[in-house]
Amino acid sequence: MHVPTLSIVGVGLLGGSIALACRQKKLAGRIVGYDPSADALRRAADRGMLDEATDDVCRAVARASLVVFCVPVDRIAEVVGACAEACRPGTLLTDVGSTKTAIVRRLAGRLPPGVNFVGSHPLAGSEKTGPENARADLFEGRLVVLTPVGDPPAAVWTIGDFWRALGARVETMSPEKHDEVLATTSHLPHLVASVLAGVLPLEWKRLTATGFRDTTRLAAGSPELWRAIFLCNQPALLAAVGDFQAHLERFRDALAKGDGERLRLLLEQGKYVRDSLSEP
Amino acid sequence: MHVPTLSIVGVGLLGGSIALACRQKKLAGRIVGYDPSADALRRAADRGMLDEATDDVCRAVARASLVVFCVPVDRIAEVVGACAEACRPGTLLTDVGSTKTAIVRRLAGRLPPGVNFVGSHPLAGSEKTGPENARADLFEGRLVVLTPVGDPPAAVWTIGDFWRALGARVETMSPEKHDEVLATTSHLPHLVASVLAGVLPLEWKRLTATGFRDTTRLAAGSPELWRAIFLCNQPALLAAVGDFQAHLERFRDALAKGDGERLRLLLEQGKYVRDSLSEP
Repeated sequence: MHVPTLSIVGVGLLGGSIALACRQKKLAGRIVGYDPSADALRRAADRGMLDEATDDVCRAVARASLVVFCVPVDRIAEVVGACAEACRPGTLLTDVGSTKTAIVRRLAGRLPPGVNFVGSHPLAGSEKTGPENARADLFEGRLVVLTPVGDPPAAVWTIGDFWRALGARVETMSPEKHDEVLATTSHLPHLVASVLAGVLPLEWKRLTATGFRDTTRLAAGSPELWRAIFLCNQPALLAAVGDFQAHLERFRDALAKGDGERLRLLLEQGKYVRDSLSEP
Repeated sequence: MHVPTLSIVGVGLLGGSIALACRQKKLAGRIVGYDPSADALRRAADRGMLDEATDDVCRAVARASLVVFCVPVDRIAEVVGACAEACRPGTLLTDVGSTKTAIVRRLAGRLPPGVNFVGSHPLAGSEKTGPENARADLFEGRLVVLTPVGDPPAAVWTIGDFWRALGARVETMSPEKHDEVLATTSHLPHLVASVLAGVLPLEWKRLTATGFRDTTRLAAGSPELWRAIFLCNQPALLAAVGDFQAHLERFRDALAKGDGERLRLLLEQGKYVRDSLSEP
């Protein structure tokens, strides 16, 4: 795998980590970075991850062989649409968005001939943001989900190769299935962590320990990014929240009735699932 | 601080960690351990944390200057009551239970003359159990809450000294206040983690990442221990669950209405609280 010119649109945590990983693995001949924030561009450049930094997104993609869009999910389709005309035929486009249906369906059939977009979602990240937190090993051993919809097989294969070269495993599914699953495995935990943090009276914070901190870690994520993710995956996330509410009510009911045997069974089931998750 | 004979009733994760810490800091002349499980006693003895191991709880406490009860919360008052007559006058008793009101109120005024029980709750632990997971540094920098109710000040001070000698900070509050606060800071996160783990279809587990794993870590804890904690703190935990349900409904409602500004504010509030928690 070799990418003559890699363009990264949005040099935050994910874009920066892609750049660092490509540097370390010598995957790209040249790395061009765009960001709407001059400060983020400078911090990315300071870490030596870019050969060229520009605040002109069309210039950033004009000579690219592969462009990775690392902007908030509610902006991806718009930014891809705005850039696509500036790309040479043969340019491959992908993204890192945590929701897929709205993006992929909006772009399907609307790109110039020879320019292909294949949706990607690397299941990797951090509550920390910005290129200063980027890590070359962020994708090592992680899963990347591709959500092709009628794209040329060679395009899908190349995007998969790219992620595999960064150390990731790759799986393919429909954007709708992706969004249904991720609503439960990623978006719901974020929402739940934020609810839990939100009910803590601040004067009790010295009485929290590692349990509260771990369970609420995700709540430290960017409200702006996560609001966009929640809204872009609204129907599937509402269904996941409904499942959570129904299951929570089972716990509450068993507790209210003092039904120890039912509480134990509910806790056993949660433990069974949690114990079955492999460590990262 | 020096304890001529320290007795530990229940040599699991917490009892074992107390023994290891006392060994390392040379706080105890002699450490006697009791456990109803012969296997746990053997594993504790194998780690060299006990001078004497016995399956006779009255024998374990008979010569003690200080006894720490490390048994499930629903058994503490009963075991303390059964042992107290076997203690010499002047013996100090404490525990490590995660709930306090039921234990402390049941024992108040019912111990033999000269034998005092001061409730303790070290905010330290792990989803792992058993003496094989015990660590000498488990209490280092952690908070221990004492819940005295009319106990002699010297007894309260000595128990505080003991925990400070293990590296902990010590704070005093009423058992009722303790249970109200810990319902939100400890018992609710456990319940929420278990609910979240419980709604994950097993066939989706490969699509979880660190976020799901961290948010559900607590669900791996012992169902038996946590059922007892939930039931011993039933009224306060029900109130905390009610607060959580009401706040969750605010998120669900904002999401259902597509109210991005309200979602952002709710996420901002959760982030503000989470960011204000110091790292352990």
